[in-house]
Amino acid sequence: MGKTIAINAGSSTLKFKLFEMPQERVIASGAVERIGFETSPINIRYGLDHEYQETEAVPNHLTAVNIILDELIKLHIIAHYDEITGVGHRVVAGGEIFHDSVLITDQVLTEIEQLAEYAPLHNPANAVGIRALKKVLPNVPAVAVFDTAFHTSMPPVNYLYSLPYDYYQKYGARKFGAHGTSHRYVAGRAAKLLGRPLDDLKLITLHLGAGSSITAIQNGKSVDTSMGFTPLAGITMATRAGDVDASLVAFLMKKLDIHDPDEMLKILNTQSGLLGIAGSADMKELEDRYDDDEQARLAIDIFVNRIVKYVGAYMAEMQGADALVITAGIGERDARMRQRIADKLAYFGVQIDPRRNQVSGVERDLSTPEAKVRVVLIPTNEELMIARDVERVGRKS
Amino acid sequence: MGKTIAINAGSSTLKFKLFEMPQERVIASGAVERIGFETSPINIRYGLDHEYQETEAVPNHLTAVNIILDELIKLHIIAHYDEITGVGHRVVAGGEIFHDSVLITDQVLTEIEQLAEYAPLHNPANAVGIRALKKVLPNVPAVAVFDTAFHTSMPPVNYLYSLPYDYYQKYGARKFGAHGTSHRYVAGRAAKLLGRPLDDLKLITLHLGAGSSITAIQNGKSVDTSMGFTPLAGITMATRAGDVDASLVAFLMKKLDIHDPDEMLKILNTQSGLLGIAGSADMKELEDRYDDDEQARLAIDIFVNRIVKYVGAYMAEMQGADALVITAGIGERDARMRQRIADKLAYFGVQIDPRRNQVSGVERDLSTPEAKVRVVLIPTNEELMIARDVERVGRKS
Repeated sequence: MGKTIAINAGSSTLKFKLFEMPQERVIASGAVERIGFETSPINIRYGLDHEYQETEAVPNHLTAVNIILDELIKLHIIAHYDEITGVGHRVVAGGEIFHDSVLITDQVLTEIEQLAEYAPLHNPANAVGIRALKKVLPNVPAVAVFDTAFHTSMPPVNYLYSLPYDYYQKYGARKFGAHGTSHRYVAGRAAKLLGRPLDDLKLITLHLGAGSSITAIQNGKSVDTSMGFTPLAGITMATRAGDVDASLVAFLMKKLDIHDPDEMLKILNTQSGLLGIAGSADMKELEDRYDDDEQARLAIDIFVNRIVKYVGAYMAEMQGADALVITAGIGERDARMRQRIADKLAYFGVQIDPRRNQVSGVERDLSTPEAKVRVVLIPTNEELMIARDVERVGRKS
Repeated sequence: MGKTIAINAGSSTLKFKLFEMPQERVIASGAVERIGFETSPINIRYGLDHEYQETEAVPNHLTAVNIILDELIKLHIIAHYDEITGVGHRVVAGGEIFHDSVLITDQVLTEIEQLAEYAPLHNPANAVGIRALKKVLPNVPAVAVFDTAFHTSMPPVNYLYSLPYDYYQKYGARKFGAHGTSHRYVAGRAAKLLGRPLDDLKLITLHLGAGSSITAIQNGKSVDTSMGFTPLAGITMATRAGDVDASLVAFLMKKLDIHDPDEMLKILNTQSGLLGIAGSADMKELEDRYDDDEQARLAIDIFVNRIVKYVGAYMAEMQGADALVITAGIGERDARMRQRIADKLAYFGVQIDPRRNQVSGVERDLSTPEAKVRVVLIPTNEELMIARDVERVGRKS
């Protein structure tokens, strides 16, 4: 028995969730944001409904880690640092090296840093988080859990682009996907809910949040996913364009007088998607505007359209599916969205019960008894998956 | 009664087909290639199996037109220029202006030239062809037939990208598609073959050639198509990459030390696709290598994979389809390819009869009696469609 902390470090944030393992009980969670800025909000939730909030200048991730651990002691959540017996880190890009979560050695940390070109915003931040935790808790096993690992089971026909083949061999230009930890978690939970072995199921998992991706899962393994070389590709997202004709990169650079392709991609990543179409990246706001605002309706209809097409593509690829599994912010909370998606997929035998669908954030089979393809709602829990992987991988050492 | 010539002018080529209308009888066809080069092969086929071949230096399209018409007289195919009473031109990009074929006025010609930014390689060449024919046959009605026109019926959810909306409004950044004349032709023929009104059918048309695209057709109208803003997007093609993560444009430019995005796009257009994966853009050659060569097998498997996913996407979008319609070079001649595609789509009730499938270039329903979704083979005939549009649109004047 011990406490495991799951860490998600971004360039200016450090989020954590503290579990009592193997009971999987959440003891505390929180975040330090705007690290390196003049004011950094600190937030820790614990107990049934306790919340600690503070704002101070947090210059770097190491200080953020020290602040969090000291506050955990001050708040009597832990008595000593050494109660924490496992650390798990979310790492975005694992390339073709990491097919599973792994105990972090110096070698592993170096490789994570070297994979930065596949996730320039994320991997360096993940590595900073790893170093900070290692400094404060040097003797605690730390495990890296990769967003891409679950998708390394994709076959070459799906991960290869139709590019000169040496771009794959020399530069690793291939589909990696993302959200793997979430897709893996909800697939496992869905199998339990359906009362069938994961190994016998064909699932299409819809992770619909600010970032969204859809994965085809056969026998528990990812066979295809909508995100690509980076998380830009796939369906429409809050601020990301999803799939576009690559020719548009050159065309728009000329029109906008942009000379650096990375600047163009920044627009595709941060000013496109729902925000680009309708001026808001917030699906809740768009839902409120849906009936009266043409652009909001267009953004939502396009979002649904892309989801429906990916589901159809994966239905074709797997020759059918037993269930769609819906998760993440939009998927868990937006019942209207789930209804729209299901209605558009009636051809496949998808049918949800409107009353069963009136829920938010619970595990539930939403389907009517007649549905040929089930639709199940599964709230995602990447942090729990990380904590479990610490148990599974970190305890071997 | 009269003779109509269908013209397809490229940057260094001028292809033609001469019809007796309205009988739709082909009198002659041919091409001048390598216009502007030192040697330009000229080829005219006529009668049952006559072929005229010559090589000379053809400096420009105007000379090419004069050579063709003079040879048609010398070969006794026509007696005078004025037997030609209609001219039809293939034009690649019609933007949002041209929803149908149109009689070419000075205004129309100017607009075709202004649309060059949507088809930088094609529209200027098409315009050169129009000017050359106009000079030689100034009093004959000439009609422009646009590759994009058939797709202007697509709804906004399908033609809009998830980009900042003003990129569509200001710059016309949207999906236009291509091969529209072919998709329209084969859809019409398929309806006849199936003995059902086109207006009652849901069809998915697969134009599989050096350039390939897939179109969802509902009630005779294009509702979605795989090509995008340009013909780069969609499925794997002979030398075009089809869909790729747009991030790869920036990533590969760095890796390859390329500073002009157009140069990167040239690679995606001319060195990718089947050629990029397996070193050959020739499907026949790849088929011959399939059993013994891993890269050839990979290229073909990826080609099939992308087709299957688009068909699935369009099945979802239209909530089913009555038939798949297969056409163009690969589609018409490669029975193994048709079998592979059908096998992968068995889930939808696609089933072709292997014996019925042993044909090339004929109109035929390939399906078994039990098939729920028919598969029909229809050789395409864009030139005939152009000649028909000359009758339909050009005779009004």
